[in-house]
Amino acid sequence: MRRHRCHQVVRSDSETESESDAETMRCLSCKEEYAARDAGTCKECYEEASETEEELKREIEDLKAKVAFLRFWSPLDHAHRGSPTSPGPVFPDVVLVASDDGLPPVPVPAHKAVLVNRSPVFKAMLENEMEESRSGTIKISDVSYDALRAFVNYLYTAEAWLDEQMACDLLVLAEKYQVKHLKGFCEKFLVSKLNWDNSLLTYAFAHQHGAKLVLDAALSMITDNMDKLTKKEEYMELVEKDPRLVVEIYEAYLSKQVNTAVLKDTSMKS
Amino acid sequence: MRRHRCHQVVRSDSETESESDAETMRCLSCKEEYAARDAGTCKECYEEASETEEELKREIEDLKAKVAFLRFWSPLDHAHRGSPTSPGPVFPDVVLVASDDGLPPVPVPAHKAVLVNRSPVFKAMLENEMEESRSGTIKISDVSYDALRAFVNYLYTAEAWLDEQMACDLLVLAEKYQVKHLKGFCEKFLVSKLNWDNSLLTYAFAHQHGAKLVLDAALSMITDNMDKLTKKEEYMELVEKDPRLVVEIYEAYLSKQVNTAVLKDTSMKS
Repeated sequence: MRRHRCHQVVRSDSETESESDAETMRCLSCKEEYAARDAGTCKECYEEASETEEELKREIEDLKAKVAFLRFWSPLDHAHRGSPTSPGPVFPDVVLVASDDGLPPVPVPAHKAVLVNRSPVFKAMLENEMEESRSGTIKISDVSYDALRAFVNYLYTAEAWLDEQMACDLLVLAEKYQVKHLKGFCEKFLVSKLNWDNSLLTYAFAHQHGAKLVLDAALSMITDNMDKLTKKEEYMELVEKDPRLVVEIYEAYLSKQVNTAVLKDTSMKS
Repeated sequence: MRRHRCHQVVRSDSETESESDAETMRCLSCKEEYAARDAGTCKECYEEASETEEELKREIEDLKAKVAFLRFWSPLDHAHRGSPTSPGPVFPDVVLVASDDGLPPVPVPAHKAVLVNRSPVFKAMLENEMEESRSGTIKISDVSYDALRAFVNYLYTAEAWLDEQMACDLLVLAEKYQVKHLKGFCEKFLVSKLNWDNSLLTYAFAHQHGAKLVLDAALSMITDNMDKLTKKEEYMELVEKDPRLVVEIYEAYLSKQVNTAVLKDTSMKS
């Protein structure tokens, strides 16, 4: 890929001397000395890598500026909500209502244009003169006001504050309204919170909502700890409630064992 | 910052031998051999740099996905414009009109919410019940239909196809409506297209529209070529039309000469 000027080391006496001095070299990055056995890259590749890093950082700055430009203020953001003397400066043309909350419904204002742009489900709903489009009200069942508010906010800002409950609530909404970016965001969060204690519940949840990233991570954690599985409280509950999911765990475990055996076999032969 | 395991090279006979073999090392990046004098980094720093690069690349992927999520389809995008049998699926609530085009005006549909979100000027205009807000029509003078269309499109997508004329037209609109991101986008483009032939016109244009990035680049190119300046056709025109701008060129040149002299003086003394 790249040619070095000094491949053939032509020796003069002075060079031999300087090279013997140079048995330890100084790293251009951490500035510490190192011996030949700890050598990393040549100077040219180091300089190239530094340039690449600078370029990547510039690209990140550009993308962050683009995100800041494209990001909407949310219609829920107080700074843009307007005061009582100057009401409604944000021109919402639709409201969403958490219908099964038990509490008196508080409408969440939004823009049809934003909903349609972010979700193919809202697009079909609002563009096809369905009831929601005529009435300007979208009722959403099985969701709390807080989750609905966070959901709408995400559609404007691509940001959400998550805990495990909120991540699950938003993942369900993201699945229902096909907001892929939000689904991925929640999945990454749930994977980061995965541990042995919540692995079985997380597995069942991921299964139910087609969250492949979470499913794979949970399954991998469970099959790594099969000896402890049947002692788990949630295990018996799952066998009772949805035995097919338990079968899939055993199938995954079996397939892992077979793969491991094949690998061992291959390495022993070679 | 970081400690190496092998700083103190304790010699055994075999090690001396192997180190003498290792006078040329193999670069972990380009895989070619190099001599000590071409050494770049130690292994540890190389590995760390590789990790950093991977992390930066992941961050770029995440940001790109965020941009794709936040990016609006444009109301001008044919795929979303709807057919004659299903008109207006995009719920525009305002139109922009290029009023001084000479041609019969073609309205550019848009959403108040988007305009308000992207431009403080549109925000003031539309939130304060000015004529534009009541009529739902915003007249924009001194602009072609094509430039207005590209401008509105940028407010939705953060993207524009530029040539030099379009970059100038959009920069003027960006300045007028305080769309900083677009202004920066046009400025970078104009700097990339800067050459000796267009330097004086670009300088005057940048001056007129407060495009600091372009101004500095153009001024630097001009003051690097002062011997050719007065022979330029546009020079006499500028002296005629706006002599203050010419004075600023000479002032910049003088200040550059003084700085260079100081630098030379310092380096001679040291």
